[in-house]
Amino acid sequence: MIDLYTYATPNGRKPAILLEELELPYTIHKIDIGKGEQFSPKFVAINPNSKIPVIVDRDADITVFESGAILIYLAEKTSKLLPTVTVDRVKVIEWLMFQMASVGPMFGQLGHFRNAAPEQLPYAIARYETETRRLLGVLDRQLADQPYIAGDYSIADIATFPWVAAVKSPYLNVSLDDVPAVQRWIEQMKTRPAVRVGMDILDPDYSSTFGTLAGAEEAIAQ
Amino acid sequence: MIDLYTYATPNGRKPAILLEELELPYTIHKIDIGKGEQFSPKFVAINPNSKIPVIVDRDADITVFESGAILIYLAEKTSKLLPTVTVDRVKVIEWLMFQMASVGPMFGQLGHFRNAAPEQLPYAIARYETETRRLLGVLDRQLADQPYIAGDYSIADIATFPWVAAVKSPYLNVSLDDVPAVQRWIEQMKTRPAVRVGMDILDPDYSSTFGTLAGAEEAIAQ
Ligand SMILES: N[C@@H](CCC(=O)N[C@@H](CS)C(=O)NCC(=O)O)C(=O)O
Ligand SMILES: N[C@@H](CCC(=O)N[C@@H](CS)C(=O)NCC(=O)O)C(=O)O
Repeated sequence: MIDLYTYATPNGRKPAILLEELELPYTIHKIDIGKGEQFSPKFVAINPNSKIPVIVDRDADITVFESGAILIYLAEKTSKLLPTVTVDRVKVIEWLMFQMASVGPMFGQLGHFRNAAPEQLPYAIARYETETRRLLGVLDRQLADQPYIAGDYSIADIATFPWVAAVKSPYLNVSLDDVPAVQRWIEQMKTRPAVRVGMDILDPDYSSTFGTLAGAEEAIAQ
Repeated sequence: MIDLYTYATPNGRKPAILLEELELPYTIHKIDIGKGEQFSPKFVAINPNSKIPVIVDRDADITVFESGAILIYLAEKTSKLLPTVTVDRVKVIEWLMFQMASVGPMFGQLGHFRNAAPEQLPYAIARYETETRRLLGVLDRQLADQPYIAGDYSIADIATFPWVAAVKSPYLNVSLDDVPAVQRWIEQMKTRPAVRVGMDILDPDYSSTFGTLAGAEEAIAQ
């Protein structure tokens, strides 16, 4: 049995989607980051960086924090969604890193300066909006001639989807009009039952409202 | 033979350090990001995200971008500095992700708002200085009772060192006085010949000036 410590945010949804895809049993433990529960001594003991998500794989007696590390751990545990053939494996890991190092942090900074910063700073908002658009353009070219980000469906798609699904929400408020391949990929991802269930954790109607009302809770995500 | 496309920045130095540790032969190709060489069609063909570093492993006919993916690729190729035993492997990958998702992007934002932004925005500078100090504190607690970040020396140390070595430079200008375990780890890392050689790529005197004059070139790193 796997314990998933998480919250209804983009990073928090990634492990839930993968656990659903892998059909591994898991229990969700809500860590309300709006209330600061990520700073409790009990939580800091499982993630010294005091951020969700974290998993505890009780049978293996292993704790994993950082969503990218959780995805690699679960994929390697089950030999699924992360190839072992080097040329394919490299592609999945580089696009997973692209999500971890750029898509997550930069979309997150846009959300912060749009919604959470105490003053509106036009330079900072423009900086992260430009970078968000640039990153979406990189993804669009990658998706133009293949169905998924690294070729076949993989943990790179699972890592990226919850962030891209929030782009049109009032929280990030960036158009997808210029990135038709990304739009097509979003529609494809939405047809996967595991994606819908994983997106709905702690917020049962979330996946039906992508890009419309959805996203309000991301306001406290970074 | 491995081709390393890089520049003298924190992310650009990581693969050089690892290649030195692994004693793999490589050729450095300078991509001058100050001149925009990362946007040339030839470079975009090897990294659609137009950022250094990239490696091309010519014998294996494999190209890898994203420094974190390069480190995993080279470690797996040689079975070194990334354990295969799950409990140890997870630790290395989670701290590598911590570097990729937090240390790199957040230190980079501090550098941007301190040095490159056209206006001084006190809120943004304070935001990223606070986050840089918080991240250094997380690392300090991790290093308090073990020599390296994930226990034994690993690619997590190699990923993190070039960024932490730049913290005291004028570019980031954050004190290390409150993080004695990080200071001890820096001194330990500096004793490794591979670290010094890897840090000195494209800038032969860099490793002798850590935290003093060094760091000017980071001004164009993000
Ligand atoms: N790189 C980390 C980022 C995790 C992260 O930013 N988590 C946010 C929610 S999406 C969080 O816990 N924020 C609370 C806080 O920073 O105090 C990962 O991918 O796991
Ligand atoms: N997540 C990437 C970040 C790479 C990165 O930010 N590279 C910088 C230099 S340190 C760069 O190429 N900047 C030029 C640009 O952004 O145009 C990695 O770790 O490889």
